[in-house]
Amino acid sequence: MMLRVCVIAVSILATALALDNGLALTPPMGWLAWERYRCIVDCVAYPDDCISEQLFRRTADLLVSEGYADVGYEYVIIDDCWLALERDSDGRLQPDPQRFPSGIKALADYVHSRGLKFGIYEDFGTYTCAGYPGVVGHMQTDAQTFADWEVDYVKLDGCWSKPEDMDTGYPLFGQYLNQTGRPMVYSCSWPVYQEFAGIEPDFESLKENCNLWRNYVDIDDSWEEVEIIMDYFAERQDRIADHAGPGHWNDPDMLIIGNYGLSYDQSKVQMAIWAILAAPLLISTELRDIKPEYKAILQNKDILAVNQDALGIQGHRINSSAGIEIWTRPISPLLGDKYSYAVAFVSHRIDGYPYLISVNLAEIGLTSAQGYNFQDLYDPESPPEILKPDSILSIRVNPSGVVFYRATIITAL
Amino acid sequence: MMLRVCVIAVSILATALALDNGLALTPPMGWLAWERYRCIVDCVAYPDDCISEQLFRRTADLLVSEGYADVGYEYVIIDDCWLALERDSDGRLQPDPQRFPSGIKALADYVHSRGLKFGIYEDFGTYTCAGYPGVVGHMQTDAQTFADWEVDYVKLDGCWSKPEDMDTGYPLFGQYLNQTGRPMVYSCSWPVYQEFAGIEPDFESLKENCNLWRNYVDIDDSWEEVEIIMDYFAERQDRIADHAGPGHWNDPDMLIIGNYGLSYDQSKVQMAIWAILAAPLLISTELRDIKPEYKAILQNKDILAVNQDALGIQGHRINSSAGIEIWTRPISPLLGDKYSYAVAFVSHRIDGYPYLISVNLAEIGLTSAQGYNFQDLYDPESPPEILKPDSILSIRVNPSGVVFYRATIITAL
Repeated sequence: MMLRVCVIAVSILATALALDNGLALTPPMGWLAWERYRCIVDCVAYPDDCISEQLFRRTADLLVSEGYADVGYEYVIIDDCWLALERDSDGRLQPDPQRFPSGIKALADYVHSRGLKFGIYEDFGTYTCAGYPGVVGHMQTDAQTFADWEVDYVKLDGCWSKPEDMDTGYPLFGQYLNQTGRPMVYSCSWPVYQEFAGIEPDFESLKENCNLWRNYVDIDDSWEEVEIIMDYFAERQDRIADHAGPGHWNDPDMLIIGNYGLSYDQSKVQMAIWAILAAPLLISTELRDIKPEYKAILQNKDILAVNQDALGIQGHRINSSAGIEIWTRPISPLLGDKYSYAVAFVSHRIDGYPYLISVNLAEIGLTSAQGYNFQDLYDPESPPEILKPDSILSIRVNPSGVVFYRATIITAL
Repeated sequence: MMLRVCVIAVSILATALALDNGLALTPPMGWLAWERYRCIVDCVAYPDDCISEQLFRRTADLLVSEGYADVGYEYVIIDDCWLALERDSDGRLQPDPQRFPSGIKALADYVHSRGLKFGIYEDFGTYTCAGYPGVVGHMQTDAQTFADWEVDYVKLDGCWSKPEDMDTGYPLFGQYLNQTGRPMVYSCSWPVYQEFAGIEPDFESLKENCNLWRNYVDIDDSWEEVEIIMDYFAERQDRIADHAGPGHWNDPDMLIIGNYGLSYDQSKVQMAIWAILAAPLLISTELRDIKPEYKAILQNKDILAVNQDALGIQGHRINSSAGIEIWTRPISPLLGDKYSYAVAFVSHRIDGYPYLISVNLAEIGLTSAQGYNFQDLYDPESPPEILKPDSILSIRVNPSGVVFYRATIITAL
């Protein structure tokens, strides 16, 4: 009896403290304003670019009309700079009245009316990164406000706060979100602030309390930034990767595909590696202007299927030599204890021509005796090829480019 | 009488020693193999990519059929790795017999038959950079061999030689070229080797002896490389720029537009700045595969007209602030002592959105009271705008992008 009481008590405690919202069983997909639109607040000078309800309505429309919603992009997420500088007379958050004259609830309604979900940004500290009111001291109110507005996703940044307070503060805000009864994806920025402060993040707590978490720097619009982030996740993969799984994901930050800084080949690399990393896929570009070949990368269904694989296992960089990296991710289906794989060959070379690489499949972990059906995910018209563990795969990889395969394990004899 | 003899003697000496070939009165335009094709010599594994007569015939065909010849690209230039490892029994250079079975003369004939000009590569040292025979000890023979083959352009590299020998050696080879009686553009690599050896190149001698010269590193396929080269030319412009002029040009190396490493915006930057620098325009990409929008950059007639402006004045970076650079180049037509200008606003920013810059025209050197007719060279459909010295030009520049104007001086009242 004593034991049973104990179990129930622990169970209640766990329910109250852990996130337990049943969301993000695969990495969230959507659109997030920050990388492309930052904190543009001058709607007179920049009517099309400023952080305003018009931007998010337009983006919701485009996600639907341009086919992004059909392939799984569903969250339309505001980042910083949506708030008024002061809370209202009841201490509640309120949006900037000029830029969000209809209010956030109306915007959420609009997004929902398009069949999409609505996300918002706040900050764990006294201010957001751009200087708007943070949640500290108002956590319960703000969580309830978000629920009242029918928010589906909350990104909580970590400016103007102490990294050592985050181990308790972030879970507490998650608990308040939970207590509203409205399931909201909870994106935490907790580990990046702790890592930069020299504190090892508590990944077990992250997994319990957050649906996704930013590990490292904000992405900017350049190939060098993509390379830096890839390196970060690869060099620390033994410490980071295994914490990802259904409901809780590492987040290498937004997709910058379609903007100004990536070439076509470099864009393919970001998409492939974000799929390998089981990363949230949050587009941050202007969907009106994107060129068709970049849109095709974002909407590549085979690559999205890798990203969204139900097993939710984050992949690893398993080799790096002569400027060519090999990344693999175990995916379904399985044969016994052997996985299928996504396999990416990424070049960081800049010397002119597609570089030849030859690998033995067993050496990169593909050991199922019956072999694998290899499909080039960026060349779906190419005939699939059956390769065995002792097969040598020889391919040429473009400078700052990728060759990306799904290697589906052969299950029938 | 004595004086007259003296003048004649100096004149003969000058004729014999200086290049004096009447070529390259505007920066040479063409296609050069190195950046894209390097030293691929395995034609079995890479039949389409190897350095072979087929590659240069195909490229000559494409320069004509795809419209490059029509806008001024005329030189088809072999780089390293065309040679056999040994000279022939008479001590003359010979091409690799497998890859150039028809011989160089036949290839030159083919290029000429397409209405184009033919260029070749050698090296001032004992070997070329890739280890094939250099010209040292055979200069007169090799110059004559090139003339016999009806070569129109010679790039002379500087591997496997002493930088301190170049002040005499490069002029001597130029003299042998001259003595053949065949006009050949002479591209020297002399200053880059001297700069890296800590020797200040003798630009007066360069101007007398070479039609163009490589100042700095070989370009590779990345935006970072373009930025590094732009910085090099900007930071040393007071020492370098004024030596450029009709018949003698600084060479920041090939155009990498159409390859793997540059985004569309970054490609526009390279084209604009190479035009500002009065740089040789040597495309190094596969013309079969290039996407239409990149081809359009290479064939932008208004930008080519800036590059080829008859005055031949190299431009300067005149301002750099907040990640935005302003470059100007004086071009024709003039009004009195005042020039027209090409004006480029280049962003090295990576923070998401097109950045606003406002400048007063007089502050960037555009002081003609009657004003200038501004035409956006990447948006030829946009209406031209008349601006005066006290006008404020306000534009937004894309991250790693450019806005590029021709500001034509208003000559009529």
